[in-house]
Amino acid sequence: MSDKPFILVTNDDGIHARGLQELVEVMKFFGDVVVISSETSMSGKSCAITVDQPLRAVEIEKILGVPTYKSNGTPVDSVKLSFNSLFDRTPDFVVSGINHGANSSISVIYSGTMGAAIEGSLHGVPSVGFSLDDYSSGADFSKAKIIVAKIFQNVLENGLPPFTCLNVNIPKGKPKGIKVCRQTHGKWMEEFEKRTDPHGREYHWLSGYFKNFEEGSAETDIYALENNFVSVVPVAVDMTCYKTLEELQNWKF
Amino acid sequence: MSDKPFILVTNDDGIHARGLQELVEVMKFFGDVVVISSETSMSGKSCAITVDQPLRAVEIEKILGVPTYKSNGTPVDSVKLSFNSLFDRTPDFVVSGINHGANSSISVIYSGTMGAAIEGSLHGVPSVGFSLDDYSSGADFSKAKIIVAKIFQNVLENGLPPFTCLNVNIPKGKPKGIKVCRQTHGKWMEEFEKRTDPHGREYHWLSGYFKNFEEGSAETDIYALENNFVSVVPVAVDMTCYKTLEELQNWKF
Repeated sequence: MSDKPFILVTNDDGIHARGLQELVEVMKFFGDVVVISSETSMSGKSCAITVDQPLRAVEIEKILGVPTYKSNGTPVDSVKLSFNSLFDRTPDFVVSGINHGANSSISVIYSGTMGAAIEGSLHGVPSVGFSLDDYSSGADFSKAKIIVAKIFQNVLENGLPPFTCLNVNIPKGKPKGIKVCRQTHGKWMEEFEKRTDPHGREYHWLSGYFKNFEEGSAETDIYALENNFVSVVPVAVDMTCYKTLEELQNWKF
Repeated sequence: MSDKPFILVTNDDGIHARGLQELVEVMKFFGDVVVISSETSMSGKSCAITVDQPLRAVEIEKILGVPTYKSNGTPVDSVKLSFNSLFDRTPDFVVSGINHGANSSISVIYSGTMGAAIEGSLHGVPSVGFSLDDYSSGADFSKAKIIVAKIFQNVLENGLPPFTCLNVNIPKGKPKGIKVCRQTHGKWMEEFEKRTDPHGREYHWLSGYFKNFEEGSAETDIYALENNFVSVVPVAVDMTCYKTLEELQNWKF
C-alpha cells in the first residue's frame, strides 16, 4: 500500500465538469487520488442523502490517470460510499470542487460542493470545498489551481480541527491574496418566473439575486471576494445558536 | 383579509403523512393555515433546492378543511414558493412536521423537515421543525400534539431572533417535560449492505447507527430524548466555526 495520503476528489457539477479535472490535476501532486462523482449535475443538493433507493458506484474511464467512479447518489452519498467498503483504504482527505460558481455566504447550506466537504469532516478527515466565482463555460482555472495548492499545502501541514471543514471561494482573475473570513449574513431573494406549459398548466422557474445584509464588513467572505481576495471560511456542523439558547431558558412551557 | 396569523405547514414525509395532518390540526387553533408538501417522501433532502427543472404547485383536496398544495419540489423549494407569488399573503410562521422519526443531533443537517424550518427562518419569520421519535406507522401523536401547542404558544408570545429556528424532538410516550438543549456532538456510522441485482450488478443500501460522542451530557438533545424529555434546540444558519477562524489566522498562504 502506498504511504502517500489517499485523497478523495468529488464535486457537485458531475463527472464531466472541467472543475473536477482541474482539481484532480492539483491533487495528484499531494497524494494518491481517487475520484467519485455523479453522471449528472448535483448542484443545490446540500447535505441530501438517498434513503429510498439503493446506491450504485461503478468504475469508469480514468480521469488524468486516477481511478474514477460514477455514483448515482448525491455528493454526500458519494462521500459516505467512499468511506464504506468501496476502496481498500479510507480517504485521508476529502476535497470537493472546483465548483463552477461561488458558494459564499448562505449558499453554504444549499451547496452540494460543501455538502461533500461537510460530510468528509464528519468522517474525521480534513476536508475542503473549492469554488471559483465564475459560471462561464470558458472559465480560467489556472490561477485558481495555484490557490488550491497553497491552501491544501496548509491543510496538509496544519490539519483541521475535527468536524470542521473549509469553504474556499476564489474570485475571477488574479486574486490579491487569501483571507480567513466568516460567513456573510445574507440571503437569496427569490424570484419565480411563472410560465404556462403547452397543456395550460402553470410552472415556476427559480431565480433570484443575493441580498447582503452587511455590505462593507471587511471580515466577511463576500467582501473578500468583491475585493478580489480568496475567502476561506471554517465551517462547523454544530448549528446550535448559543445566544438564543440562553434566551430560551426564560420561556415558560 | 383575516387578521389571524398566516401559518405555513409543510413536512418532508409527503402530503399523505399522518404527522402532517396532526400538525395541521394543532395549527388551526392558532391561525389561518395553508399546507404545501410533496406527493412522495422527501426524507433526507436537507436544504436541497431544485435548479435544473421547473417547479409546480397545484391545489389539491383540502386537509382538515385548509387549502392544500402539492409541490414537485423539495421542502425548501416548497417554502420558497410559498413566500413568492403562490398565495396572496406571505406566511407569518413556518412549521414543519410532525416528522415520523427524530431529527436530533447531526440529523439536523440531513433532515428535510429541518431544511424547511431553516428556510422559513431565512425568510425572516419564526419557524419550527417538529419530530416525533417514533417511526412506526401506528405512532401515537396525541401527546406530541400537546407539546406542539405549548411550544408554538411560546413562539407566538416571544417570537424568535431573526434567522433562527427551533429543532423540536419529542420522545415516544408521555414526555416528562421540555428542555432547551444544544445539538449533540455525534454522527451516523454508516453501514452499506452490498447486494447484487438480477443482472449481476452491485448496489448498496445505506443503513447505519448513531454514535454519540458525548454520552451522558445533560445539556444535549439526545440526552433529553433518552430521558423522555422534549428537546428544543435553537438552530442558526451561520455555520462559521469562530474558534477555528482564530486559529487559521496563523496559517501562511
